[in-house]
Amino acid sequence: MKRIGMLTSGGDCQSLNAAMRGVVKGLSGFYKDFEIYGFQDGYKGLMYQNYKVMSPKDFSGILTLGGTILGTSRQPFKLMGTPDEKGQDKVKLMMDTYKKLKLDALVVLGGNGTHKTANLLSEKGLNVVTLPKTIDNDIWGTDMTFGFQSAVDIATNALDCIHTTAASHNRVFIVELMGHKVGWVALHAGIAGGADVILLPEIPYDIDKVIQCIEKRTKEGKRFSILAVAEGAISKEDAALSKKQLKAKRLNSPYPSAAYEIADKIKEKTGQEIRVTVPGHTQRGGGPCAYDRAISSRLGAAAAELIHKEQYGYMVALRDGKVVPVPLSEVAGKLKVVTPDDPMIHEGKVLGISFGDE
Amino acid sequence: MKRIGMLTSGGDCQSLNAAMRGVVKGLSGFYKDFEIYGFQDGYKGLMYQNYKVMSPKDFSGILTLGGTILGTSRQPFKLMGTPDEKGQDKVKLMMDTYKKLKLDALVVLGGNGTHKTANLLSEKGLNVVTLPKTIDNDIWGTDMTFGFQSAVDIATNALDCIHTTAASHNRVFIVELMGHKVGWVALHAGIAGGADVILLPEIPYDIDKVIQCIEKRTKEGKRFSILAVAEGAISKEDAALSKKQLKAKRLNSPYPSAAYEIADKIKEKTGQEIRVTVPGHTQRGGGPCAYDRAISSRLGAAAAELIHKEQYGYMVALRDGKVVPVPLSEVAGKLKVVTPDDPMIHEGKVLGISFGDE
Amino acid sequence: MKRIGMLTSGGDCQSLNAAMRGVVKGLSGFYKDFEIYGFQDGYKGLMYQNYKVMSPKDFSGILTLGGTILGTSRQPFKLMGTPDEKGQDKVKLMMDTYKKLKLDALVVLGGNGTHKTANLLSEKGLNVVTLPKTIDNDIWGTDMTFGFQSAVDIATNALDCIHTTAASHNRVFIVELMGHKVGWVALHAGIAGGADVILLPEIPYDIDKVIQCIEKRTKEGKRFSILAVAEGAISKEDAALSKKQLKAKRLNSPYPSAAYEIADKIKEKTGQEIRVTVPGHTQRGGGPCAYDRAISSRLGAAAAELIHKEQYGYMVALRDGKVVPVPLSEVAGKLKVVTPDDPMIHEGKVLGISFGDE
Amino acid sequence: MKRIGMLTSGGDCQSLNAAMRGVVKGLSGFYKDFEIYGFQDGYKGLMYQNYKVMSPKDFSGILTLGGTILGTSRQPFKLMGTPDEKGQDKVKLMMDTYKKLKLDALVVLGGNGTHKTANLLSEKGLNVVTLPKTIDNDIWGTDMTFGFQSAVDIATNALDCIHTTAASHNRVFIVELMGHKVGWVALHAGIAGGADVILLPEIPYDIDKVIQCIEKRTKEGKRFSILAVAEGAISKEDAALSKKQLKAKRLNSPYPSAAYEIADKIKEKTGQEIRVTVPGHTQRGGGPCAYDRAISSRLGAAAAELIHKEQYGYMVALRDGKVVPVPLSEVAGKLKVVTPDDPMIHEGKVLGISFGDE
Repeated sequence: MKRIGMLTSGGDCQSLNAAMRGVVKGLSGFYKDFEIYGFQDGYKGLMYQNYKVMSPKDFSGILTLGGTILGTSRQPFKLMGTPDEKGQDKVKLMMDTYKKLKLDALVVLGGNGTHKTANLLSEKGLNVVTLPKTIDNDIWGTDMTFGFQSAVDIATNALDCIHTTAASHNRVFIVELMGHKVGWVALHAGIAGGADVILLPEIPYDIDKVIQCIEKRTKEGKRFSILAVAEGAISKEDAALSKKQLKAKRLNSPYPSAAYEIADKIKEKTGQEIRVTVPGHTQRGGGPCAYDRAISSRLGAAAAELIHKEQYGYMVALRDGKVVPVPLSEVAGKLKVVTPDDPMIHEGKVLGISFGDE
Repeated sequence: MKRIGMLTSGGDCQSLNAAMRGVVKGLSGFYKDFEIYGFQDGYKGLMYQNYKVMSPKDFSGILTLGGTILGTSRQPFKLMGTPDEKGQDKVKLMMDTYKKLKLDALVVLGGNGTHKTANLLSEKGLNVVTLPKTIDNDIWGTDMTFGFQSAVDIATNALDCIHTTAASHNRVFIVELMGHKVGWVALHAGIAGGADVILLPEIPYDIDKVIQCIEKRTKEGKRFSILAVAEGAISKEDAALSKKQLKAKRLNSPYPSAAYEIADKIKEKTGQEIRVTVPGHTQRGGGPCAYDRAISSRLGAAAAELIHKEQYGYMVALRDGKVVPVPLSEVAGKLKVVTPDDPMIHEGKVLGISFGDE
Repeated sequence: MKRIGMLTSGGDCQSLNAAMRGVVKGLSGFYKDFEIYGFQDGYKGLMYQNYKVMSPKDFSGILTLGGTILGTSRQPFKLMGTPDEKGQDKVKLMMDTYKKLKLDALVVLGGNGTHKTANLLSEKGLNVVTLPKTIDNDIWGTDMTFGFQSAVDIATNALDCIHTTAASHNRVFIVELMGHKVGWVALHAGIAGGADVILLPEIPYDIDKVIQCIEKRTKEGKRFSILAVAEGAISKEDAALSKKQLKAKRLNSPYPSAAYEIADKIKEKTGQEIRVTVPGHTQRGGGPCAYDRAISSRLGAAAAELIHKEQYGYMVALRDGKVVPVPLSEVAGKLKVVTPDDPMIHEGKVLGISFGDE
Repeated sequence: MKRIGMLTSGGDCQSLNAAMRGVVKGLSGFYKDFEIYGFQDGYKGLMYQNYKVMSPKDFSGILTLGGTILGTSRQPFKLMGTPDEKGQDKVKLMMDTYKKLKLDALVVLGGNGTHKTANLLSEKGLNVVTLPKTIDNDIWGTDMTFGFQSAVDIATNALDCIHTTAASHNRVFIVELMGHKVGWVALHAGIAGGADVILLPEIPYDIDKVIQCIEKRTKEGKRFSILAVAEGAISKEDAALSKKQLKAKRLNSPYPSAAYEIADKIKEKTGQEIRVTVPGHTQRGGGPCAYDRAISSRLGAAAAELIHKEQYGYMVALRDGKVVPVPLSEVAGKLKVVTPDDPMIHEGKVLGISFGDE
């Protein structure tokens, strides 16, 4: 009898259930007899022994289901070193649960923060295998995370909806897209959705360049302009500030988010009214797209295979279309950002898209 | 040779193009020879003779296209009596264009404000036929406007997306839905999307009742609560204010919209964090749903038939599944609101939904 | 403690789960204590006591889920009078189960065949309440059945997909749509999807009229023609046959279905190649659309209310936008067909659509 | 003034318009002055000088539009060497048009057959740049073709719809998917859609293995089985036949396509009824998905850049996420098939999917 722990941690995304189904389908082939210990709400469930013993049947029919049947919670790595409310060592709590339940392995689905903790647990000797989930696509070591394409689909659909209304009304629209500290969703959805301007955290914008682009379009007789703005988009002025200065500035900002500040700046300088749309959490909700379901199933199968081969301490990753194991130690603590020399930036510029930098 | 003017006015919505295609398909059957004078950007185009002479071919292939190929603009009725920037009488300008172009009829697609103006033009002797468009479904005299079901689909989809993320995270979410001064979109999408609370302009809410509902769900072990809030939702306190007082209060409000104020109130009283999502203008964008395409095609056909029969001064309306002409004089100036005795309110309460009133 | 039986019978459709959720949500409000006896696979489960005792929790989270969590099977009424394989009386078997389990009421979700049986059980004294489900929309006594609009959405989407490929390739396409013996799906989807020809069982077609329509379009320079053909579409010649003759002809037919025969006839007379697409069972699959979810939730609530008021022997129906109870005796054995004087037929003809009859 | 010819050839697919828009957006950045010669219906338009002179405006707003605004036709390479109906040399006709119009370059969007011809024209000295379009994803030299993911989305959606109805009814379903002679669509959609069996042209199936898989599922208490069958799927027996024998066999086959034959075989051996669904041409219709819109825009930009750099004789391809030029001579005449050692086959087997081979 094999005992496999499983948990989903960090912000939820599409295809978590599909990925877990993949792992369990794979395990079903390798083992006649096994139990899944499904920890509730991420690492919390592992710390406080909040779990359900589950069988393959529990993971049947969830391929298309949004969210995560295990629940999740944000559990930042920086808290790992500090005791919990009762003064207990969090890592020790997790290891105690693992040992008490005599787990053979722990499957962890999560994003960047989650991987730091997973690496720590692996270094402490637990048999950990992870899967890269996040709509942000910012996990180092994999070309693609599941959840990302589903989020891009929703973001692109929002841009499509805004296009028809913008075109009908002669308007400038800003659509603020998710992505945390990176611009992958805005970059992909912006190109797919035909945005005229794309602003990313990785390429600080000059508001005058943005306005130039809008005014150029107006001169050319275009009835509207659409800006796809990542939630982490930052101006050149702000990018020059120290972290401390920036934090202080943001605390005092009257704007709920980046898009509103940009809208105000454009309005101020042009007198034109700007509409802001924030699809927000809808981008991480609903069922996964076919692409995500395929890659998360594949990653799940690979994770099961690693367990069967007793190869621990790895994240299963997608590289050049193939699934490969990447050591957790290489993944933890790094961020995959859009670099200014990313081919999509160049291609975007060839397509006439302004990134607000030139 | 028949000369038919056509314009779309007010906020855009889905199925405007499908409706115009319907009108033109119908006219093609009735007349061998006719021209469409497509006025640009609503009544503005009629006032300032900004139009294109169009043929049936121009309306081909637009059945699924979002927005309006004629463009639109908001042109409130209250401005009708006042001169334009150059001191010209707006109604006279429109009538002059109509006469100058020797139009046989004018087809107007619009919402409430649009219908006031259309009725005025009809009273002045123009041959006007109108079609009821709006995502708000608030036009008096018709059971259904086109655009409404498409908006409900998008709003429901937003609720679906939020459901999976709310369930995964143990959260309370507010989704603010469009509808102008009425609650039709929030009511239909709220029921279709399984909202736990629905707040409408027509049923002022008691924040304590809303909180009770959320707390009851928490006690029952439900992991989340979803509130579908119409953009016009109003508290009992605010509903008791005079129009003037309310306007003043809103001018000083720090909240971008209703949902944010409600979120703050709940947070204040319960300490719980509330997430707000505002799908906004996406609700009026993108292609029309099958339902809207069917009814707008039918309404378009009926409008063409009215023109052929030279029956003017009517809006084509849907009543009990049939298309009927309704005199513009009956439509103009009225608003179709949700009444507290609407069967859907009762049914919603049977389903356990709180409307914040009891 | 109330004991409520529930079953879904006949071909599955979208929104069955949403409707059952509605019933159970309603019952939860009326009764502190109740059990749902969920019979598996339709009347079969009732006959052979194959059921699960279920609680409201089992019906939670299924609003958007396609199919039916209870399973279903086709159980034609004509078999009611005959004994089962073991020689047992089927109606007696069902009544025995009902009595043995001391049920207070039986909720039945089904189509035409299902309603005949439900009426019979009601006449025998069981407390029956029914809900009208079918993608065919052919249940007498209600304006709308749930499942219908979802099927129309899928059928319309198929027409949309075919439109782009037909237009690119200069082709004639036939899309065969579901609807059993009636043409509602083909009529609504045909209008919503911009079909050039719509063939319905209720309006026997003259193949020469169909060909004339295609040739007229070709002459006008149109690159393609799309035919929306109901699976039950019938030629004037076949409509003139006796039932027996028709059955014999169909047994010997080389065509898998109506669309293929029509394609061959057109090809034979025009030499043009025709492509056939049969979306088939996809039309009854997948999650329900917002419209169906709203009406099935409302109907479910009304069914719960009837039980609470102990008003039995009724189907909850939608009439002119309102939910009303209709006696089962009025519903059973009747079929709601498209009549040639249905306003949508006239409107379709105004739009230039050929129904193959003139 | 630059003169750029453009044509789309072969079966249509999604994102052709998006790709052409990308090319034209790119050209707009590189050249102040240029004309697009849009040849109608593929190489036919080039042969017979059927074209429109187009400007960037004509390619505006078509990012989401399905099909191709230029029209297309199938023009197999094998006919290249033979004269046309009037005895004219086809290649010469095309070259004459190119020269007569003084074209600077010819942009060709097409699949395998199209690339053979494009390579020939390039060898003859025309300045040719191509883009890889096809839902089949079988073009050698590129990891991905546009159209493919959109087709996979539609195919997966069909599988999803069938899943709910299969589960409700205890049934075996076969869904036949497109892909011409290769199995990419069936492989990706099969995994994404949770198929139990996937049959591909590249892996000849043993019907007994397929039946074993279905029977194993039934024994395990699964209510249904879903088979994703590529239109080119072939049995081991048929794969052993010579081309001539196979052709003869297919000519005499009573089955419209592969899926029906497999259904009959299973029925014959098990007595179980099997339902077949053929989404057919819907898989190449409708608007492109976000993924295809992003890659086709990128490829379009790259094609424009090649023209600007006067680098001719290349197809723009996607390799490991980057856009690279691949010599036409390397592409022409080759087919990218699924190989039995493709990682997705192995992963599929780990997931418990049967490929009918073991």
